[in-house]
Amino acid sequence: MEVYLDNSATTMVFPEVAELMKKIMCEDYGNPSSLHTKGVQAEQYLRYARETLARILKVQEKELYFTSGGTEADNMALLGAALANGRRGRRLITTQIEHPAVLQSMRYLESQGFQVTYLPVDGCGQIRLEDLRRALTPDTILVSVMHTNNEIGSLQPVAEAGALIRRENPSALFHVDAVQGFGKERIYPKRMNIDLLSASGHKIHGPKGVGFLYAGERVKLQPILYGGGQQQNLRSGTENVPGIAGMAKAAELLYDHLEDDHERLRRLKRFFIEGVERLEDVKVNGLLPGEPYGEGTASHVVSVSFGGVRSEVLLHALEEQGIYVSAGSACSARKPQPSATLKAIGVDKNLLGSTIRFSFSVFTTQKEIDYTLQVLYDKLPVLRKYTRR
Amino acid sequence: MEVYLDNSATTMVFPEVAELMKKIMCEDYGNPSSLHTKGVQAEQYLRYARETLARILKVQEKELYFTSGGTEADNMALLGAALANGRRGRRLITTQIEHPAVLQSMRYLESQGFQVTYLPVDGCGQIRLEDLRRALTPDTILVSVMHTNNEIGSLQPVAEAGALIRRENPSALFHVDAVQGFGKERIYPKRMNIDLLSASGHKIHGPKGVGFLYAGERVKLQPILYGGGQQQNLRSGTENVPGIAGMAKAAELLYDHLEDDHERLRRLKRFFIEGVERLEDVKVNGLLPGEPYGEGTASHVVSVSFGGVRSEVLLHALEEQGIYVSAGSACSARKPQPSATLKAIGVDKNLLGSTIRFSFSVFTTQKEIDYTLQVLYDKLPVLRKYTRR
Repeated sequence: MEVYLDNSATTMVFPEVAELMKKIMCEDYGNPSSLHTKGVQAEQYLRYARETLARILKVQEKELYFTSGGTEADNMALLGAALANGRRGRRLITTQIEHPAVLQSMRYLESQGFQVTYLPVDGCGQIRLEDLRRALTPDTILVSVMHTNNEIGSLQPVAEAGALIRRENPSALFHVDAVQGFGKERIYPKRMNIDLLSASGHKIHGPKGVGFLYAGERVKLQPILYGGGQQQNLRSGTENVPGIAGMAKAAELLYDHLEDDHERLRRLKRFFIEGVERLEDVKVNGLLPGEPYGEGTASHVVSVSFGGVRSEVLLHALEEQGIYVSAGSACSARKPQPSATLKAIGVDKNLLGSTIRFSFSVFTTQKEIDYTLQVLYDKLPVLRKYTRR
Repeated sequence: MEVYLDNSATTMVFPEVAELMKKIMCEDYGNPSSLHTKGVQAEQYLRYARETLARILKVQEKELYFTSGGTEADNMALLGAALANGRRGRRLITTQIEHPAVLQSMRYLESQGFQVTYLPVDGCGQIRLEDLRRALTPDTILVSVMHTNNEIGSLQPVAEAGALIRRENPSALFHVDAVQGFGKERIYPKRMNIDLLSASGHKIHGPKGVGFLYAGERVKLQPILYGGGQQQNLRSGTENVPGIAGMAKAAELLYDHLEDDHERLRRLKRFFIEGVERLEDVKVNGLLPGEPYGEGTASHVVSVSFGGVRSEVLLHALEEQGIYVSAGSACSARKPQPSATLKAIGVDKNLLGSTIRFSFSVFTTQKEIDYTLQVLYDKLPVLRKYTRR
């Protein structure tokens, strides 16, 4: 049996999406900048994508920019906004548990003379609004808080943070990295006072190599790529038409059944957590007090520390049984460093290297969860025995 | 009959390439950074792509970086090299007829305190080596010269330029934008003293949204995107595995039959130029003296000025007959400006707005060229009659 539980790393592309992309690549392959029918046809796919995503987010079509993925969207938001607004102030705020695309962009901006405050998180992986309020100085130009954490699934209070920022410092921009949240939760930038929002295609059963940035009308950005002036001069380069249309189609398919899938994934998650907790010496990370089944965290991520076994060992033991999971997150290019997120939420030092992320998708079934639990019950005691010797 | 002669704008994806990409998207969809089999499988596609492209270019695999397209590759080369080497000197050299991805990157670097020399070209669209030699000051850190011009198909003397730079100023880096040349000509960066080379997937019957940058081992680059540290920390972001594999597959298919296709396209080009020149008041642009059929220019591009008719009018008249061509180039997002390239080669002011680019591909047939010429013979006199009234 093959059980893919590494959907926070990347997802299987919906067959309908791959089919659509193939059609665009082989038949409707025009360049949207071309003046003839083939160009107009290509432009129509871009319009379809804009309309679809704008409807899902309740934003304007012209507020969407297509990028090569979540990393570029984050860079475009942070570098673009900081460099375009650097005269108003040099202070930026983010959290200690952001994705490297945000953290490393911030490090670069520090090298350019910006000061960055990294907000801590509590044991559940959430920032405290009071910390944000205190950090929000008048010279703060940009705040970046992720929607859903990629390692433990904690959800940040983005709507509350947005309201707070708008109230305390209306000229500060608010960026939300929603790479792990888009396609899983309803996110409405306008209502939530979000000025900039990043998302990625390949986390939502769309293709790799494509993502988007929402940037509200009032936001001033400096481009990070220069060229033919596509996308209102903000993102040059021939648009990745099949990728963009594929991403929009994937989003459409997900949002059409979001509440049902959500409900089903919540049940699977609860069942999985109950099952895992039957094992000795395990800890599910990032659960909120009074919500033992991760009700207040993402429906698709469960981070578990297994005492007495190295995560790589468990990962490969599961893999031998056809189960694919992740040790930490896959986004950091196989770096063997201990996870900053797990450290930030106070995971015991001995458990940092013993943590596995299980991440579900709309394709995940009860049967797969049953099987995964059974394999854990069978293998874990054996692995622990060997490890402890 | 449908005749697509806008292959310099973008190309139809090879069916084999689309099929491979679909398989990767729906079956082998892992994240190359994942530690399990699905990740290893994805990594193997990247290795296939690196091996294939390295073999074609005769370079090392680790000297290849995958990007979101030609524009990003150009930006990565120019911004990356200028910013990493800016302490050694502030002078850059390029030509007046580069693609906007190069020209606009240069404009940005000017705003950052670099001085840029824009070399003029002769009536055939070629730089003079003597001009390059004179411009090459000791504080020049980077020279960027395109391989094949996207509007008129002129080929630059890149090997000679490379040798000249290596001789006169060995520490200056040499970048070649080969977006229009890769897949059509044999290009060997090492032999040609090229330090940086950009290419794009969608110009070679590969997918949109992917390209690559060759950067020789000795080249110091500053990344332009920050994140998870993929690709030796130079280009963060989950690799676009299907796009990268698709691009490599397309290159493989083209280079397997390069000489035959080249030969066939040369014959078609000659036939087309002969046919077009039977019309009154036309001028084929950028032909070298003594090479009336474009022998010394790209085999796939023919730029023709048709006196007495606006290019948009002719473009749409051809389109009505199923023939897709371009007025100028498609890369500049429908900007109605007169072409800088055509101006630089001294095209008569009255003909600037009367120029059409016909660009062929390996799919172009004799029958399509016959048909296109017939449509030109039928329609042009009529259009001119209306225009001149």
